Order: sequence, then C-alpha cells, then structure tokens
Amino acid sequence: MAEETGNWVLMVTAQTPTNIAVIKYWGKRDETLILPVNDSISVTLDPDHLCTTTTVAVSPSFVNDRMWLNDKEISLSGRRFQNCLREIRNRACDFEDKQKGIKIEKKDWEKLHVHIASYNNFPTAAGLASSAAGFACLVFSLAKLMNLREDQSQLSAIARQGSGSACRSLFGGFVKWIMGKDEKGSDSLAVQLADEEHWNDLVIIIAVVSSRQKETSSTSGMRESVETSLLLQHRAKEVVPKRIVQMEKAIKNRDFSSFAQLACADSNQFHAVCLDTSPPIFYMNDTSHRIISYVEKWNRSEGSPQVAYTFDAGPNAVMIARNRKVATQLLQRLLFFFPPNSDTDLNSYVLGDKSILHDAGIEGMKDVEELPPPEINTAPAQKYQGDVSYFICTRPGRGPVLLSDESKALLNPETGMPK
Amino acid sequence: MAEETGNWVLMVTAQTPTNIAVIKYWGKRDETLILPVNDSISVTLDPDHLCTTTTVAVSPSFVNDRMWLNDKEISLSGRRFQNCLREIRNRACDFEDKQKGIKIEKKDWEKLHVHIASYNNFPTAAGLASSAAGFACLVFSLAKLMNLREDQSQLSAIARQGSGSACRSLFGGFVKWIMGKDEKGSDSLAVQLADEEHWNDLVIIIAVVSSRQKETSSTSGMRESVETSLLLQHRAKEVVPKRIVQMEKAIKNRDFSSFAQLACADSNQFHAVCLDTSPPIFYMNDTSHRIISYVEKWNRSEGSPQVAYTFDAGPNAVMIARNRKVATQLLQRLLFFFPPNSDTDLNSYVLGDKSILHDAGIEGMKDVEELPPPEINTAPAQKYQGDVSYFICTRPGRGPVLLSDESKALLNPETGMPK
Repeated sequence: MAEETGNWVLMVTAQTPTNIAVIKYWGKRDETLILPVNDSISVTLDPDHLCTTTTVAVSPSFVNDRMWLNDKEISLSGRRFQNCLREIRNRACDFEDKQKGIKIEKKDWEKLHVHIASYNNFPTAAGLASSAAGFACLVFSLAKLMNLREDQSQLSAIARQGSGSACRSLFGGFVKWIMGKDEKGSDSLAVQLADEEHWNDLVIIIAVVSSRQKETSSTSGMRESVETSLLLQHRAKEVVPKRIVQMEKAIKNRDFSSFAQLACADSNQFHAVCLDTSPPIFYMNDTSHRIISYVEKWNRSEGSPQVAYTFDAGPNAVMIARNRKVATQLLQRLLFFFPPNSDTDLNSYVLGDKSILHDAGIEGMKDVEELPPPEINTAPAQKYQGDVSYFICTRPGRGPVLLSDESKALLNPETGMPK
Repeated sequence: MAEETGNWVLMVTAQTPTNIAVIKYWGKRDETLILPVNDSISVTLDPDHLCTTTTVAVSPSFVNDRMWLNDKEISLSGRRFQNCLREIRNRACDFEDKQKGIKIEKKDWEKLHVHIASYNNFPTAAGLASSAAGFACLVFSLAKLMNLREDQSQLSAIARQGSGSACRSLFGGFVKWIMGKDEKGSDSLAVQLADEEHWNDLVIIIAVVSSRQKETSSTSGMRESVETSLLLQHRAKEVVPKRIVQMEKAIKNRDFSSFAQLACADSNQFHAVCLDTSPPIFYMNDTSHRIISYVEKWNRSEGSPQVAYTFDAGPNAVMIARNRKVATQLLQRLLFFFPPNSDTDLNSYVLGDKSILHDAGIEGMKDVEELPPPEINTAPAQKYQGDVSYFICTRPGRGPVLLSDESKALLNPETGMPK
C-alpha cells in the first residue's frame, strides 16, 4: 500500500434490486450462518422502482468502518454486518490503479477501513424487503471494490449472512435460493432460474397497506415458528420440495396458471405457519384478506388465474398480473375498492411505472371517482378509502449493476463522507 | 295405536346446551355419516345463557313432519334432519300412557308424524354453535318422546349425523368426541370426561365480534380444507392425537396452564389450516387478532396463563378465565378496549351472568368510560368502539335436561301447533 499517498479515496457505487419470494423462506436451521429449512424462489423487482443504491469507499485516511443509511449514520457493530465485512475482506484480492497511483495488496485490505452509504428509493419501513436489497448491494459493491474473484452465486452466500433473502437479490429475473447441505453454509446460495427477459409479460402491482399494528420482525418471527409451530417442519420437508420442482417448471414454461396457483398457496401456507406459532403471528390484516378474497373471486370467475398474490412479513400485497391488459384492469379495480384519502394526490398514490395508470385511462382523481364497480364483485360494492397507503407498479427486473457515473455516488470522492 | 283417539298429542320438551371445542374438529372422513378426521374435546356452556329449547310432539292428527325454528317454519327435507329422524324412528320403543289412554307400539312410530318447535336463547346467526345445540336437542327430545333405550353416547352418535359438533352437546362439563374406526360410524360418539362441577372455577366470556364479511359455512369450509390443505392430514394424524391425551390430562388435573396453552395453540392451528386451504378461509378478523394479542400479552406478563381463547368458524372470541377474579379483570379490560357504541345500553352489551359486571364495579356506561387503561398494555392504549357487538358471561354447564313444566313447551298441548 502506498502509505505516502494517504489522501486517496477508492470508491464503487452499485444498484441492487429487491425481490419477492413466490415460494417462501420461513425458518432457519442455523441462526448464525442464516441457513434455511427449505429452498425458496423469488422474482426480482425492477430496480427502476424499488432498489438500493450503495457507495462503498476505502481510504487510508478513514479511521473506522462507518455506514450511513438514507443519510443517517447507523451502527456496523451488528453480527450480520460484521459477518459480511469479514467474509469479503477474507476474499479481497490485489488491486492496482496506476493512473491514480493506488496499489493495494491482498494483505492490506485488512487494515483499510470502509465507508458505506446506502439509499433506498422506497420507504425503508414499509415492509418491502429493504434489508434484502441492502445487504445484496453492500456485498456486491464491496466485492467490486475489493476486487473479489467470486461469481454472483458465491457472493450470494455472503449476502445470505447479512439477510437470508438478500442472496436472491444478486440476480435478476427468477431466482432460486438452494438451501444446501453443508454445515458451514458454503452451498446455501442463489442461482438464476431465468433472466428478466424470459417472461416479460408479467406486471407487478404492490399495495402498501396501512397498518397500525406493530409487527413482529421476520427474524424473531421465524425463530418462534421454528421453535413452536408443529406444522413448519412438515411444510419444509414434505410440501416445499415438491412445490419448488413445480414452480421451476411453471417459470420455465411461462405457465401462469401453475405459477399463480403455487405462489398463492405458498404465501397462504407461510402465513398459516405464522398463525400456528405460539404466540401466533399475524402479518396480514383485514385489508390483506379483502385483496386476497377479491383476487380469488376474479380468478374463479375467469376460469383461470389472471393475478397471483403473495404477502411477506407484513400486510402489503404483491400482485403479479399475467399481462399488461390484466394489470390495467387490476389497477382500475384496486383503485375502485381502495381509493386514496381525499387529501392524497393521485401522483403520490400510484408510484413506479405510471404508464399503467395511463393505459387504465386514469389521469386524475375524477377518473378514480368515476370508476365503475367491477362486474364480478358481490353487490353492494363496498369501498375502503384510506386502507391502502399507495400502490407501486413494477415488473420483473435486472440484477445488481455498477454505476460508473460518479454523480450517482453517495460519498464525496475527495473526502469519502456522505455528499 | 288407539286409532279411535285421534285427537291426542304426546309431547316432550327439552333444553340442550351449546359447546365450544378446545381441541378442534375440522375435516370429515365421511361427509354423509359425518365422521371426523380426528378426536375433539369441548366445554359445554351453561344453558342458562346459551341453549336450545325444543318441544317435539306426535299425534295421529298430524299429516306431515313439520318444524319451526325461532317461530318460523323451516324445511325438514334436508339430509341431516332426515338422517336423525330415521335413526330415531328405527330405535323407537313401545310406549304407553294409561292415564291419557295412549298406547304406541314400536311399529306404529313409523306412521306417526312429528311436530318440532325449537328456540335459541341467543342469536342464531351469530356463530355460536346454534346447530350443535339444535341437533342435540332435537335428538334428545325425540329419543325421550319415542322411548328410546339408548344411552347418551349412543344418542350422540345420532346427533352427530345432524351436525358433527352436536354430539358433544349431549353431555355437560368436558366432553370428548371419539372419532371412531367403524366405517358405518357406530363408534364415532361423545363421552363425558368430567362433569360441570369438576372444574367450576372457570368463567367464560364470549365476545360477539361485529363482522361485515360473508363467512364460509363450516360444512363447505372443512370440505375445502380436506380437499386442498396440505397441512390438514398432518394435523389430524400427528398433532391432534397427542394434544387429546394432554388435554384430557389437563382437564383431569385442573391444570389451567396446560389447558390454556393447548386450547390456544389448537384454535390457532385450526385457523392456520383454514388459511392453508385454497382459496384460503379467513374466519378471524382484525378484532379477533387484537383480542388474541391482548390475551397473549397479559398471559406473558403474568408468567403463566390467566385466560385461554378459542375461535370457531367466525370472528367471535371465546375466552376462558382461570377463575372469577381473573374474569372480572378480563371483563374490565375488554370493556376498556371495546366500549359499546354510544347508543348501546350496557344491559344489552353484557349478557349472561351479569354478576361479573357487578364484581367489576361496573353499574353503568359512566363506569365503562372511567375504566383505567390496563397497566400491561403498550402505550397509547387505543380503543376500538363498536368492534364488539356484545359480550356474554357464562361458565361450564350441564347437559340436556327434560323440562316437565308444560308452560315451557313451545307447542300447544291440544293442537300440537306453535304457541
């Protein structure tokens, strides 16, 4: 290491997507290494609408490892951060930038402190898998910075130690987290089943549901389920392995009926296991139930599934429409049942890909008020104003990317401090 | 049969309790005979507060079998009614009342029509097991009328064919429905585990929860669970048999901690199986969840269970307090969180054993308004006015009884028509 040039800052910025599981991860067989009790499968969401951007930097001038999340400094002392940092430093390789006169040898990385700045383009606390995108981005960007030779799957096994579902955010499209057999977790990693172009008809609408309930964190929730649910092991050993095979096939064949049937059933079974936990865990609320009942009714009335739904550890509904036409109808129907509060602007009520709104012929609140009741609803069509905070329209998306444009960096290239 | 005396009416009136399962019945192995996939255990509720009264009559003057429920004539053509009537007529015995000059031989019963009038002292549609009390009372009163020699367990196997859980209403106290092995159902019947005096500390408070949702009937719900839930068979075969043994022991030893832990876990698991059904069935709503969360928090804060909860196929909470002191506290806390709407009179908001209200020092709405927030609640203590329709205070109660007082009969002794 060129000790004399103590004022340089080496920096990498990356963007990583979030993901939503369609075959759920619920339960660890090893709490420290974050090894799951079953495989899981997810869809990566378009980072244009939901992603984490992270800038990581090293400099001989840094005196501590430090991190800022959404402009606020947070502690890196947690085991999960420490595990990721240690695993990456262990694999760091020689690096040289002759132009800048920077040379870092493998052994030097141990002594260099990092600065990390991370930003979510969506509300962190809304239950939208921010920790998945966050840890994936942390690991991906640090791996680039420290010149790791590991492939994406090997990196996913590191991200897994930050947050289990983070390993699935290392790829775009459709991703499987293989639970693995190794006690040390070396084979518990993510692989891509298909990229985001494979099935690009799909449109995803997320309903961020208003909730006054304090929720059980997924970490403690799944620990309690493993300890107390008498159904969890049966699910993990007998039910999920078959569903994984069926889901892989459904994705490969773009078989929406099977995809939807499996995704809905598996989401419901995950919440059933939560309910079978002692004390029981309720992530879904009456609004979640209403959305499910409506989608189920619609699917039955059409004779085949048009929309799949899945819920993570919270009341938010993630709905996957088989194509754009169905998504347009879905958005109309959702806006009919769940209109915004009167003081809410449509522009801040439907986020993400607003072209779906346009296709639905909705330009303003007047169009929402004039939406006709969906034909298939049971009369009278009740409305639940204010029960949804906002909607996000998105689609399956790409995996992590490096952002070479320095203006996108979250740290100052001179000081290594947040901009 | 004394054909010439065609104007006599022979009549029996009985009162039968309802019951609440603490190890749940969910799923039939035979739809027609109503044979369950597992044993279940229930507590019989005091008929003073929740019961069905039924008068049955025969007369040579009756030209059809007819039935009135809550003063309204209903059809007896359904399979369940027909099965019960047929099974009882098959077992009818010689009868003679010398005083009235009535003599009916075994073979005559076939030709005699019955009139049946039934009345619930609680709202029929409120999800309070009205069909259990109803079919139990129908079978019990007809058996007395037709002079059957069968014991209560044998009668329970007939009531079972009207409504599964009805078989458990043939006894007071604590009752087990043994699933049986016989294909024909002869050994699928109820037995008493302990009478109502065995554990008379227990106090039961029912919260009848307001609901706008149309609910899935338990008959179709359990059929759909059997057909689609991948967890139901595991529950029935692996989980329930062990719980039955533990619950019998808990009841025998009046071990409230085990009783409560088992009852709560089994209620939650039954609802988990409902959620694992396709399409999913939601019986509990946000109010039900709030009651569970509150009771769980209370039990944890006390270090041992004070209150058990259990929910049937609807949002109503049945809470079992370990003793009267706890019940008094429970009622105060429930009234704090769920005060009645301002136009509701306290007297119609707390039904059943009103002495608990008195013990709680609550004489009027002013006392409800002045209730302090429970110490163990997380601040701020939110109130949910109007989310509960009313409460019923009751206790474990006796089995079916005959009412000899003719003024209690629901049919006119001269005409055999509703009074």
